[in-house]
Amino acid sequence: MTNIAVVGASGYVGGELLRLLLRHPQVRITTVTSEQHAGKPVQAVFPNLAGPELVYEAMDPSRVAAQCEVVFLALPHTKSAGPAAAFLKAGRKVIDLSADFRLRSASQYETWYGVPHPAPDLLPSAAYGLPELHRDAIRSAALVAVPGCYPTAAILSLAPLARHRLLSEPIVIDAKSGISGAGRTPALPYHFPEANESIEAYKLGAHRHLPEIEQELGAAVTFTPHLIPMTRGILSTAYVRLREARTSDQLTDLYREFYKGEPFVRVLPPGQSPNPRHTRGANYCDVSAFVDARTGTAILMAALDNLVKGAAGQAVQSLNLMQGWSESLGLQDSGLFP
Amino acid sequence: MTNIAVVGASGYVGGELLRLLLRHPQVRITTVTSEQHAGKPVQAVFPNLAGPELVYEAMDPSRVAAQCEVVFLALPHTKSAGPAAAFLKAGRKVIDLSADFRLRSASQYETWYGVPHPAPDLLPSAAYGLPELHRDAIRSAALVAVPGCYPTAAILSLAPLARHRLLSEPIVIDAKSGISGAGRTPALPYHFPEANESIEAYKLGAHRHLPEIEQELGAAVTFTPHLIPMTRGILSTAYVRLREARTSDQLTDLYREFYKGEPFVRVLPPGQSPNPRHTRGANYCDVSAFVDARTGTAILMAALDNLVKGAAGQAVQSLNLMQGWSESLGLQDSGLFP
Amino acid sequence: MTNIAVVGASGYVGGELLRLLLRHPQVRITTVTSEQHAGKPVQAVFPNLAGPELVYEAMDPSRVAAQCEVVFLALPHTKSAGPAAAFLKAGRKVIDLSADFRLRSASQYETWYGVPHPAPDLLPSAAYGLPELHRDAIRSAALVAVPGCYPTAAILSLAPLARHRLLSEPIVIDAKSGISGAGRTPALPYHFPEANESIEAYKLGAHRHLPEIEQELGAAVTFTPHLIPMTRGILSTAYVRLREARTSDQLTDLYREFYKGEPFVRVLPPGQSPNPRHTRGANYCDVSAFVDARTGTAILMAALDNLVKGAAGQAVQSLNLMQGWSESLGLQDSGLFP
Amino acid sequence: MTNIAVVGASGYVGGELLRLLLRHPQVRITTVTSEQHAGKPVQAVFPNLAGPELVYEAMDPSRVAAQCEVVFLALPHTKSAGPAAAFLKAGRKVIDLSADFRLRSASQYETWYGVPHPAPDLLPSAAYGLPELHRDAIRSAALVAVPGCYPTAAILSLAPLARHRLLSEPIVIDAKSGISGAGRTPALPYHFPEANESIEAYKLGAHRHLPEIEQELGAAVTFTPHLIPMTRGILSTAYVRLREARTSDQLTDLYREFYKGEPFVRVLPPGQSPNPRHTRGANYCDVSAFVDARTGTAILMAALDNLVKGAAGQAVQSLNLMQGWSESLGLQDSGLFP
Repeated sequence: MTNIAVVGASGYVGGELLRLLLRHPQVRITTVTSEQHAGKPVQAVFPNLAGPELVYEAMDPSRVAAQCEVVFLALPHTKSAGPAAAFLKAGRKVIDLSADFRLRSASQYETWYGVPHPAPDLLPSAAYGLPELHRDAIRSAALVAVPGCYPTAAILSLAPLARHRLLSEPIVIDAKSGISGAGRTPALPYHFPEANESIEAYKLGAHRHLPEIEQELGAAVTFTPHLIPMTRGILSTAYVRLREARTSDQLTDLYREFYKGEPFVRVLPPGQSPNPRHTRGANYCDVSAFVDARTGTAILMAALDNLVKGAAGQAVQSLNLMQGWSESLGLQDSGLFP
Repeated sequence: MTNIAVVGASGYVGGELLRLLLRHPQVRITTVTSEQHAGKPVQAVFPNLAGPELVYEAMDPSRVAAQCEVVFLALPHTKSAGPAAAFLKAGRKVIDLSADFRLRSASQYETWYGVPHPAPDLLPSAAYGLPELHRDAIRSAALVAVPGCYPTAAILSLAPLARHRLLSEPIVIDAKSGISGAGRTPALPYHFPEANESIEAYKLGAHRHLPEIEQELGAAVTFTPHLIPMTRGILSTAYVRLREARTSDQLTDLYREFYKGEPFVRVLPPGQSPNPRHTRGANYCDVSAFVDARTGTAILMAALDNLVKGAAGQAVQSLNLMQGWSESLGLQDSGLFP
Repeated sequence: MTNIAVVGASGYVGGELLRLLLRHPQVRITTVTSEQHAGKPVQAVFPNLAGPELVYEAMDPSRVAAQCEVVFLALPHTKSAGPAAAFLKAGRKVIDLSADFRLRSASQYETWYGVPHPAPDLLPSAAYGLPELHRDAIRSAALVAVPGCYPTAAILSLAPLARHRLLSEPIVIDAKSGISGAGRTPALPYHFPEANESIEAYKLGAHRHLPEIEQELGAAVTFTPHLIPMTRGILSTAYVRLREARTSDQLTDLYREFYKGEPFVRVLPPGQSPNPRHTRGANYCDVSAFVDARTGTAILMAALDNLVKGAAGQAVQSLNLMQGWSESLGLQDSGLFP
Repeated sequence: MTNIAVVGASGYVGGELLRLLLRHPQVRITTVTSEQHAGKPVQAVFPNLAGPELVYEAMDPSRVAAQCEVVFLALPHTKSAGPAAAFLKAGRKVIDLSADFRLRSASQYETWYGVPHPAPDLLPSAAYGLPELHRDAIRSAALVAVPGCYPTAAILSLAPLARHRLLSEPIVIDAKSGISGAGRTPALPYHFPEANESIEAYKLGAHRHLPEIEQELGAAVTFTPHLIPMTRGILSTAYVRLREARTSDQLTDLYREFYKGEPFVRVLPPGQSPNPRHTRGANYCDVSAFVDARTGTAILMAALDNLVKGAAGQAVQSLNLMQGWSESLGLQDSGLFP
């Protein structure tokens, strides 16, 4: 059994990490921190959680380090680099769910996050925690930067085209997210009467997770996130013109080949839309490829659960790789449907 | 008072027509038909409807014609052309909410609807019932083909670019619709436990309302409709590269100029997403224009209530024009929010 | 045209008042106040509102009084009595949507609201603004205390039994409300991911609107409000044993007789549940009566739109009575369905 | 490993059984039947399901019996008794999720289901599959009749009062169910635009699962089921007067004592409402007890996931008992929240 700490575990991503780690056969959660809830039972904040009673502590890096071998950081962007450095120095493995180590370029970070990178010296050693693209790097990394929901969906929907140099700009990614993606802090756009029977785009051309997508695809993209009235789930619909003509069937074959053997990517038949309802609570990403023969535009879609494959599940997948365990350990369950 | 018949009034569009006509100050509903519900009070099928009790009749063209001056047809595609011809022959004005007279080309109709056009001789005299583009034609027409929700949103979001010859292919329209757009007939994709917490694309490259959009814009488009878990409302997000560079502000000015004086189109500031929740039950279409300066892609959005500006409200707007009344008569109400 | 002020118009009830008053043929909105939004256009806060641009002002009682004949107060409980007194002193009619003047007993007020009543001398002259029970008092009142959504539904579902002295304790009222009833201020229970796919009771035996229900029915009740995942609407299901046996049909006849001629109460056949979806945006309250013959328990139900018949619409109904206009002026519209 | 067959596995309960059995460490699913989908992969009907590909077969009792030791029957009421008898005769254990063996009295069955009981001779040997009340009977039974969602919630919320002879009539149970409880067959009341933003009661005094509740509690109840706009979950709110006065704390202690050691019943503090969102996908039933001191009415609540503790999970719990395994085997997971 490996001892695990979860730092910043009162938001939805933290809660989902606890849910997944509680049923993981090789780990024991020794430490759960939250500044806001220190001293409270975790089950008071997440009454859904079964299992042994856990109690929130305030974060004390040396105490946390003393209690675990691996630390998950579920902290806000820009707040994660400091603790990450401390835990790494103490010899702990760090799985960071913030954006702090996702961009390889510190200047890109400053451009998009508005502050100088807090720990640029750590960037070269961080692995981008998308196992389908960076499995080997994750295996040997002490610091893994787990991508969030939008980048995971967008990148997995387009990676086979990037690899085969079929991508040609303009590349449009139109993504639709459930509202848990916005976190657990109440605000007017997420107030039920505003968010229900509602759909809107936001942060046009300016969403902070856009540069990760461009980094991983090696191409410029127009990315438009939308908020839709559901709790969990993301659907990403991308539009590109291919450098060389392909039929829907050829493209689908190429995707099947690319994702062959992947435990968590399911390639659907062409023209069949993925739907996040089939991934709810599970670590799958469903993708499909289609070519609109009339216009020559390819439509590439991906669906996943933003809190699982888009966050906590993917983090556990990285944990499994870092520890040399089976990649799908503790993650094999079916989605919850309906 | 003008006598009005509504033929095929048991679906959502028919019910919405009744709601709007019941409060219209210049009309009297004399006839409401439904084969399925003939003999039943309309309020048994639509308990929301206030006002005088109406009773469904079975459709008998000569009897219906004898009771009205204007007929609204809310019948399925391919079932509308026959009755339309009969009513026109009897000297009645016809406002058709099906797709039967929206395409100017009978061969295009056959391509997309799979049957020869049932009344091709009527096509030249039909006006496309989008007042913002065809106001004069509607005023003088005896037959108006009211466009549905997707085309109305898509066309209004792009028409200023088409007019100014700024559109350049590829043109991508990614549209998201509430489920009332699928009608009132139960089927698995619209079953609450399937449609809730769910989003999926459908009919990729093959939706029947696509050719109308191309007809009105004069350009080929990739159109992807999505079903999202809300009852009413559509959001259309279009992506184009402009033939000539424009800033977001310039584009917004161009939209404001194009829609100046329009009673039902509201142009929002650049970067602000329209949201159908602000049009619920009302005849507005909110649009906005934005240029992603990094990638040079323009993002053009439109939101409306699929049953009002996307169907029944737009039909009443055409009625007002055909009768020489104020265009917004009976349609001035605010949306219902939240 | 009567000049109207709406004080405290940035919440959902205030916004709904504006929606209804904007289409009322006999009124002109001259003043709209909000401390938080003073100086902003009302349409920036309620983009759904059509019509002339209105601008929020800060509240200044003498200035507001100078601009209107009737004032609607949509202020929080305990904050309304002061302004009400000022406007009454200035000779204005006041329609108060808070709870400040609903209880006839100042000591009951103190018991339930935790503070001494701020203006007990005004209580005797205040009319309880439920026209179905207090029409004459409202007509001649200068101060009307409009009941909220739970009391309106609960009282209308049981008033015929109270009148006929058929009520016998224990009386149970199990009510289910959409989330707009909680107002527009974001908080965790109303955060979309918490409120969606969720139902819970709250304030068991302690909801502040309970004593109004007891006051109007003249009997003690057990009242349990529940929050359910919808935006608008309330359903109240009450259970009582009748003092004398009645069948469902007899009870329904008694309800029909009691509500005969009422413009906004619709009595449904026995066994048919009212559903708030048929009252959305409209001023109707649908009620039904049923007797479970096996157990002898009567089940009395009522459904309404919490923001209309449960707040703003009912306030306008009182306005119409106070001004001697037709009671349903500006309120005749059908509900919005679906 | 025990071989298992699931008969009638294309509805929501069947799908949920498959989800739970696929992750159960002691079973192997050998046979899955569906008349409608025979020959199709199960994953085509339930794309959420992970694991080995399963294929639907048509039901052939002798073939099914040859492939398994235990059969789950997820068939409609009245269709289950025949196959159950066949499998029992073949020496198989049967876990029946229909209502066919829940009532001990064949004449009660005929009264409520409208047909003579199809296998009355089997009734005496059937155990009512609510482990909290009938654990020993289930352990030794060959035929277990698993109660559905309403009875499970209602009975568990009131059983401690029944046991302690504190129940006094009238007993009112007001229950609110998500729409998956109505099954997977589309029909108008479950059509998204009808069921969304909607709440209504149905089958007043006439729901078929009512007599089970009375059988287990030994008292007459008024039971009113409501349909609310969510997919999964039930909340049952019961109202009774106690034979002897108790405070909320005393009652809560009594519930804690009654459910001490139960793996799946969690007793909440008095006044705190259970909420099905904390049981989603998990086998828990959360209950709470409260006494409204003003009126002397006790309010007893229970929340659960209708497809898990209200159906498939409870069936697996019975399986574990029948096989002599740990009662919570394969069922220990946390709920999915949000």
